[in-house]
Amino acid sequence: MRGKFITFEGADGSGKTTQIEKVKAYLENKGYECLLTREPGGSNLGNKIREILLHYDGKVDDLCELLLYMADRAQHVKTVIMPALEEGKIVLCDRYADSSVAYQGYARGLDIERIMKLNSIATDGLEPDLTVVFDIKTETAIQRVGNEKDRLEQEGIDFHRKLCKGYLELAKKFPQRIKTVDANLSVDEVYNQVKTLFENLGL
Amino acid sequence: MRGKFITFEGADGSGKTTQIEKVKAYLENKGYECLLTREPGGSNLGNKIREILLHYDGKVDDLCELLLYMADRAQHVKTVIMPALEEGKIVLCDRYADSSVAYQGYARGLDIERIMKLNSIATDGLEPDLTVVFDIKTETAIQRVGNEKDRLEQEGIDFHRKLCKGYLELAKKFPQRIKTVDANLSVDEVYNQVKTLFENLGL
Repeated sequence: MRGKFITFEGADGSGKTTQIEKVKAYLENKGYECLLTREPGGSNLGNKIREILLHYDGKVDDLCELLLYMADRAQHVKTVIMPALEEGKIVLCDRYADSSVAYQGYARGLDIERIMKLNSIATDGLEPDLTVVFDIKTETAIQRVGNEKDRLEQEGIDFHRKLCKGYLELAKKFPQRIKTVDANLSVDEVYNQVKTLFENLGL
Repeated sequence: MRGKFITFEGADGSGKTTQIEKVKAYLENKGYECLLTREPGGSNLGNKIREILLHYDGKVDDLCELLLYMADRAQHVKTVIMPALEEGKIVLCDRYADSSVAYQGYARGLDIERIMKLNSIATDGLEPDLTVVFDIKTETAIQRVGNEKDRLEQEGIDFHRKLCKGYLELAKKFPQRIKTVDANLSVDEVYNQVKTLFENLGL
């Protein structure tokens, strides 16, 4: 039986990485085999692309950046995600196609329909069974990011607000697939919301 | 005044690199300022992408490969080609958007309409004023490639034939922009054909 594909989205500092680890333990405890992966950089080749995306020291054109994310995604879907789903695994992915729409589209201002079209090409149409969006107040995220604060502040608070609004817009557009949790609460309270979503999916 | 954008296409071993050098000398002799560039790898960032495209030792998914070429192209257009055209230069580019259609589309079998759509996104609609296709017989190209023969033979003769046919199809589809020269002839004979095309463009 084909596995399930679940993606986790939200700003840096929204606590999603902590929650993914907890969900993975929960699922494995129930006997499911899980694959934890991420974007960018979920494949070997993807790590080389991630290296360019995160550490190239010149100016990266916005469209070039978007297409690099798409290249990373295509390789990730074809060589990592699809094979795991075919083996019946539950794939937990830290960021996926919605990140491109939220970051490059809503926050950075590239055309959203174009990004969605590119996503559809790069993923060969593979959509998650469930996407959990961690909705968090900008101030709380900044506090949490702590010593990584620079990166967030570089983009500015306005960027961060647009990003969060973008995720909420996406959740409104695709209510069947995308579920939002209030990530301003404590780790346990957030986890309870996340667990309910997994239970609703029959997991 | 905006410069002119001329691209050179054809199989490896078709002699296009030699001809580009000769054309550049011809134009500079006439007082034009030229920029000689290439794909992949026509920008600094593009060289990092080229590195992945040509030397990654694992399996690169076809779609990922295509999107990496597109990312390279987006950066190239935005940071190298457009600025040079705006400065009034003549940009001579060794391979451009048609290479993706001929190689990934006609020769490798990816959907041609999809590649053209991606090209249009990646280039922001920038089309060459003239594209010179060097049409060469497979056997002649293999002889010419000589000590680089391995790379051509790896893809196989059938691949090469499809590629050449693809370029001819493109020339039929876009007769205004794409002009074909018989690249089986001597360097001087080919050059005479190329020079005529430039003269027809008023250069």
